[in-house]
Amino acid sequence: MTIATIGERALIARLHSRLPVLPPWVLTGIGDDAAVLKPARGTVDIVTTDALVEDVHFRRTWSTPRDIGHKALAVNLSDLASMGATPRALLLSLALPAAFPLDDFDGLVDGFIFLAGGAQAPLVGGNLTRSPGPLMVNVTAVGSAQPRRVLRRSGARPGDRLFVTGALGAAAAGLAMFEAGDHASEGDLECLTAYRAPLPRLRTGIIVARNRAASACMDLSDGLADAAVQIGDASGCGIELDAATIPVQAGARRWAESLAQSPATFALGGGEDYELLFAVPKRRTRLFLTAVRQAGEASITEIGVCTKTPGHWLVESGTRRPLEGGFRHF
Amino acid sequence: MTIATIGERALIARLHSRLPVLPPWVLTGIGDDAAVLKPARGTVDIVTTDALVEDVHFRRTWSTPRDIGHKALAVNLSDLASMGATPRALLLSLALPAAFPLDDFDGLVDGFIFLAGGAQAPLVGGNLTRSPGPLMVNVTAVGSAQPRRVLRRSGARPGDRLFVTGALGAAAAGLAMFEAGDHASEGDLECLTAYRAPLPRLRTGIIVARNRAASACMDLSDGLADAAVQIGDASGCGIELDAATIPVQAGARRWAESLAQSPATFALGGGEDYELLFAVPKRRTRLFLTAVRQAGEASITEIGVCTKTPGHWLVESGTRRPLEGGFRHF
Repeated sequence: MTIATIGERALIARLHSRLPVLPPWVLTGIGDDAAVLKPARGTVDIVTTDALVEDVHFRRTWSTPRDIGHKALAVNLSDLASMGATPRALLLSLALPAAFPLDDFDGLVDGFIFLAGGAQAPLVGGNLTRSPGPLMVNVTAVGSAQPRRVLRRSGARPGDRLFVTGALGAAAAGLAMFEAGDHASEGDLECLTAYRAPLPRLRTGIIVARNRAASACMDLSDGLADAAVQIGDASGCGIELDAATIPVQAGARRWAESLAQSPATFALGGGEDYELLFAVPKRRTRLFLTAVRQAGEASITEIGVCTKTPGHWLVESGTRRPLEGGFRHF
Repeated sequence: MTIATIGERALIARLHSRLPVLPPWVLTGIGDDAAVLKPARGTVDIVTTDALVEDVHFRRTWSTPRDIGHKALAVNLSDLASMGATPRALLLSLALPAAFPLDDFDGLVDGFIFLAGGAQAPLVGGNLTRSPGPLMVNVTAVGSAQPRRVLRRSGARPGDRLFVTGALGAAAAGLAMFEAGDHASEGDLECLTAYRAPLPRLRTGIIVARNRAASACMDLSDGLADAAVQIGDASGCGIELDAATIPVQAGARRWAESLAQSPATFALGGGEDYELLFAVPKRRTRLFLTAVRQAGEASITEIGVCTKTPGHWLVESGTRRPLEGGFRHF
């Protein structure tokens, strides 16, 4: 049975029946021309949208429908996390090939809803349409934050230290394993999972922002090097990363070494690590570390510093070389 | 020159350079992980998302890039209009074929921005990605309204009269003309334009809602019959439309008659008329008509009534027949 068999109305009803009860701030959810949300008192709205496109961001042979639904939401929640925003509502826009199996539709929706439930973010609307080509999943996430606690890219100052959550390179290594066809035999499950169903650092972003424990933040969707450059440029300061301190995930390290590549390559240039890069004023370091520990989601590592002198540098074995890399979408 | 030649960063910069100055309620626009919006005092957020997919909703041989950018936004603004919401911010998510010409990118963005400017709705964020298949344009619109003035589908009561803006069937006739290949010689320009670049009834929706002059509203994206049924079902009342009163656009009427079809068919069943259907309590009729006139966007016609007895009926030449039709997306 495919989605074309049952038609749009039945698909919406099917999706609707899978949703939990709406929280009180959703005044109108799915079923009208638009959703109606009651704003949280004294907050600003944080909005973001991001799309996953079949054969660009995922393959249906590598990722299950649940993975796809999960990841499409995760990349958006990661954007809210990096702003320190609490999710309030989600919109899901699907372009579905006519032959898309109904079971896969259910799986995709379930993957989305399961992660949404954990983030206490209700699905309040969206759109279903046919695609004459690839499956496309576009998600919009609406969040809120107190105006003075929003984490932007632009708040870093010279002397601020740079910290990153988790261990990097796993998603890029996972993708490389899939591409090499090595996922059955030698693939490291943690890498494959990081690629297929990343976990956004939502609690970390929110708790750090609430405590005003960081001056800037960005997620690593396009790799660590890209994020560091973006924070430096937006904040008008230089960036210096210490290569030896960059935490590389164990499977990514093994994979890189098996290819005689530097493990730092996956970490710096590989995209889709949905970890967070923070700039932290020196005097806030303890407050910051306590906040990250309180969130309880991921380890934290100091990896560099913001400098007065402009430029982006990687210090490795005593020599400085320009920081390059970052995932390219075209 | 195609979009793949210049790359994502340059495309974003190009888009950014085409944007007007941001209004004061946008605290952070394009360039961070998410946009930050200051809510209007005492209002609720209204959010909607809708996608246009190449060869499903448009063809690049029939619509110019400007038309496509315009229409992708128009269908979303129409959803805000039908809720009585004032637009506050827009997100644009594009999946672009690698060979998409740079001039077409500029045209699409310009079509979007021109309509956005008229609606005083700033573009605050979005996403650019590659598409291995069709061009896809996903728009999210965020609006605001006073909580007690939101126009829902569900507010109609027995005795309320039904009014529709504009003249119907033009978009469906325009599409039929394109499909028949008759657009060069016999095509009615008004129909072709209604299909390619519809105008949302934003001011009408907002002013009617502010005056609390209607009990329910929906846009005609899936045709008049569908909208009438939706309002009836959501409000728990029956619907009776008077076929003779339904305003059919002149070009659509001529086109239908040339095919020996009933002109009402295009009006009732044809999708993509972005007009508004209102239910209006009898005692508010004068207030309603004044509000629509004040908006100055479109004519208004009384076409039916909400009934206590359930069911959806079309009264034609003294006989009642079930109201059917509505555009199917799958």
